[in-house]
Amino acid sequence: LADEIGGNVRGDRDRVVTGVATLDCAGPDELSFLTNRRYRDRAERTRAGAVLVAPGTELEGHDLLEAGDPYLALARLLELFHPAQPVEAGLSERAWIAEDVEQGSRVHVGPFAVIDAGARLDDDVVIGAGCFVGRGSRVGNGTELKPRVVLYPETEVGERCLIHSGVVLGGDGFGFATSAGRHHKVPQLGRVVIEDDVEIGANSTVDRGAVGDTRIGRGSKIDNLVMIGHGAQIGAHCLLAGQAGIAGSTTVGEGSVFAGQSGAGGHLTIPPGTIVAAKSAVLGDPPGPGMLAGIPATDHKTWKRSQVIVRKLPELQRELTKLRARLEQLERRRES
Amino acid sequence: LADEIGGNVRGDRDRVVTGVATLDCAGPDELSFLTNRRYRDRAERTRAGAVLVAPGTELEGHDLLEAGDPYLALARLLELFHPAQPVEAGLSERAWIAEDVEQGSRVHVGPFAVIDAGARLDDDVVIGAGCFVGRGSRVGNGTELKPRVVLYPETEVGERCLIHSGVVLGGDGFGFATSAGRHHKVPQLGRVVIEDDVEIGANSTVDRGAVGDTRIGRGSKIDNLVMIGHGAQIGAHCLLAGQAGIAGSTTVGEGSVFAGQSGAGGHLTIPPGTIVAAKSAVLGDPPGPGMLAGIPATDHKTWKRSQVIVRKLPELQRELTKLRARLEQLERRRES
Amino acid sequence: LADEIGGNVRGDRDRVVTGVATLDCAGPDELSFLTNRRYRDRAERTRAGAVLVAPGTELEGHDLLEAGDPYLALARLLELFHPAQPVEAGLSERAWIAEDVEQGSRVHVGPFAVIDAGARLDDDVVIGAGCFVGRGSRVGNGTELKPRVVLYPETEVGERCLIHSGVVLGGDGFGFATSAGRHHKVPQLGRVVIEDDVEIGANSTVDRGAVGDTRIGRGSKIDNLVMIGHGAQIGAHCLLAGQAGIAGSTTVGEGSVFAGQSGAGGHLTIPPGTIVAAKSAVLGDPPGPGMLAGIPATDHKTWKRSQVIVRKLPELQRELTKLRARLEQLERRRES
Repeated sequence: LADEIGGNVRGDRDRVVTGVATLDCAGPDELSFLTNRRYRDRAERTRAGAVLVAPGTELEGHDLLEAGDPYLALARLLELFHPAQPVEAGLSERAWIAEDVEQGSRVHVGPFAVIDAGARLDDDVVIGAGCFVGRGSRVGNGTELKPRVVLYPETEVGERCLIHSGVVLGGDGFGFATSAGRHHKVPQLGRVVIEDDVEIGANSTVDRGAVGDTRIGRGSKIDNLVMIGHGAQIGAHCLLAGQAGIAGSTTVGEGSVFAGQSGAGGHLTIPPGTIVAAKSAVLGDPPGPGMLAGIPATDHKTWKRSQVIVRKLPELQRELTKLRARLEQLERRRES
Repeated sequence: LADEIGGNVRGDRDRVVTGVATLDCAGPDELSFLTNRRYRDRAERTRAGAVLVAPGTELEGHDLLEAGDPYLALARLLELFHPAQPVEAGLSERAWIAEDVEQGSRVHVGPFAVIDAGARLDDDVVIGAGCFVGRGSRVGNGTELKPRVVLYPETEVGERCLIHSGVVLGGDGFGFATSAGRHHKVPQLGRVVIEDDVEIGANSTVDRGAVGDTRIGRGSKIDNLVMIGHGAQIGAHCLLAGQAGIAGSTTVGEGSVFAGQSGAGGHLTIPPGTIVAAKSAVLGDPPGPGMLAGIPATDHKTWKRSQVIVRKLPELQRELTKLRARLEQLERRRES
Repeated sequence: LADEIGGNVRGDRDRVVTGVATLDCAGPDELSFLTNRRYRDRAERTRAGAVLVAPGTELEGHDLLEAGDPYLALARLLELFHPAQPVEAGLSERAWIAEDVEQGSRVHVGPFAVIDAGARLDDDVVIGAGCFVGRGSRVGNGTELKPRVVLYPETEVGERCLIHSGVVLGGDGFGFATSAGRHHKVPQLGRVVIEDDVEIGANSTVDRGAVGDTRIGRGSKIDNLVMIGHGAQIGAHCLLAGQAGIAGSTTVGEGSVFAGQSGAGGHLTIPPGTIVAAKSAVLGDPPGPGMLAGIPATDHKTWKRSQVIVRKLPELQRELTKLRARLEQLERRRES
């Protein structure tokens, strides 16, 4: 194993492990892992035969497997122990596939899926049960749609993507022209384009652009219940955690991270490498890259210091009242 | 075109445009639009043959098409260039339709849809693939359910509505009577009633009322991943943006706007025309109409001023410490 | 009725009521209820023949039905007046059920549902139309999946659970090892285990654990659009309201309550009986049980007091400026 992950064994090189398990659950013939320092005390108590750790970690009474990046090594080890089971190719007789659909090799379409006219499914595509692939949509090589995904017409999904159940790509953007208190629909004619190696979590939604496209850059990973508004441009290699939301026409620079329940307003430009803390909302263009927090989001350190004081505001107010009283006393004495 | 939108041409009246595109993408034979002042510099650089603008906008080197409300005009122009393709009527043989379902004329039901007993589909209704229309539900003239919408039993959807994929209407409200630490379900027996001309975005949910109905007023537009609690009454012509949430039994007055990721607590009365800023939460009855922000939401201007100071709190605290020191010095001198 | 709910009649014991309705809608032959003091004025105006109230409530001109816990009594009365209609057992010919699926007695499977290989459905299970029950999943006695629920492979759902439409259980957790700016998927090999008597609202998602399981404790009730991250452990008898989110590996103690749009960060331990206010976010381990509010969440009372002052910060700042001016005056006089 050490060779496989480019790691180093401290302890019994011949130890055989039969699987990977959490620190709490692992038994003597299993490998566990310490990838988050919070769990140091659990690691000390674990019954695991061996533990995957960062270099230099001391953990008495356990054989250790060191790796420069133990979380990355864990990913590799889990793949080794649990190789993904390939889905068998074949089109379910219970699917509805339009006659002119173009198909590559080894395509799988599950029961009750609908592949509408003019769609194209490339090689090794897996379309889960009950999916809907709209008119003229394209799904690239090796991409998998889990059951019950919806692609509205003209949606493009790149190669090696993984789209989880309940995801809706290409729904109409929220565009209305309000006149005399009535909301008139602005037709949403752009598309959704998902580049290669993107993963999108369960029940997330990406709206189609009004005129231009909405785009999710290659290698970006999106968690569950995330909302991407019409015309947004998510750069490559971004991470958007659960329940985050990016409003319409906003550009998120490459490698940015939005933590859980965070958001960005519309028509903004978020610089590459921006990190937005949980529950925060970016409501204006940030001046440069960095970590942001708060509503509206500001520099993370400033926000943190401010929040500490916010909690002490009653104290601060009392202090102010006292100072005023003392000042008044001085003033009175002065006048007397 | 100018006649069609009641607008005015400044420049070459005979210019022919073949389509509409964004400022960045438009070519010389396309029309673009400047409906948001943020994009003024893009408008100056656009290669578009003509640009739709507000009256009086100066933009050198371009033929201009002026309209009193350019965003509304854009909606009209997009419809002209891209007329919606009517869905062909017909019931898929692969749908499951109960025998006693009442149907109007020109109804479309897609494959793998289920229309349960006692349901009624009026004229020109479109039920997308994989939808579920529960027992006794009614869908009004010209309404479209995109693929994979669920209507629980007894749900009513009005005329000319557009319900996007993944929407669930009529799920049980979150009502439990807690006794000795155990939560007992309160049966949810009300319905969901969606009035005419409502649009609901992908994966949003509207719960049925416990005893009375939950109602979405005519002309209201709801974005994706929005949650409307049981017994809520959303007035006519409201806008609820992405990931907003309205808790149970709350009444939202006509023409109100909830921005992205905002919310309102339960059992509240929100006056007509209220605007709630992004990420804000109304947690008590507002005293009157107006724009609200913050958690809990308060007058928007007050909130904005306060937030500016929140970010300066460390400074303010230092200032207070200094003042105290100076005061103490004065006091000591006084006493000496 | 009084006997059925262990209550007490004040007024005409022989009054016959034909149904239950809200205070605003009830007619003279209906029973209404006053379970929330906010609605006292509506109760005074109601046309209801009788009103269910807490003991000692005075309400002139109405026959009263007193119950120690009127909300709990309402739950019981609604069940009496509207007994749940049992779903007819039977497997739709339009469902796709793998040959080796184990089935108990009186199982119902709706049209276009998929029950994959190795799954087990116990007695009295109801699988709604269009559901997907993945390979090796188990659904316990008396549990109902409403239409369009997805269980990923190996998911376990206990007895008497109610899972609403659009719910996705067992999707991959959001686990990526980032190396040189690229995000490498960490295989998500744990399961989702839902214990007995759990209800999960429409379009909510619970992710499978990376290595261990994600677990929802017995009797817990989850509202719509809630997100539970991988490896989270939700204790028994918790309430999670609409759009709440619990990040990965967090443990929520028994009987805790998360209000609407609240959240908890990852790898935290929330003590039993914790109450988290709407829109709040727990971002560190709370020191003990209690009610929390704010971002980051702190003691609710402290937060409330602080927020009152936050709104007065402009005033406080002006006050500070004035004090400084007065102090400077004193200092100048002192020096002169």
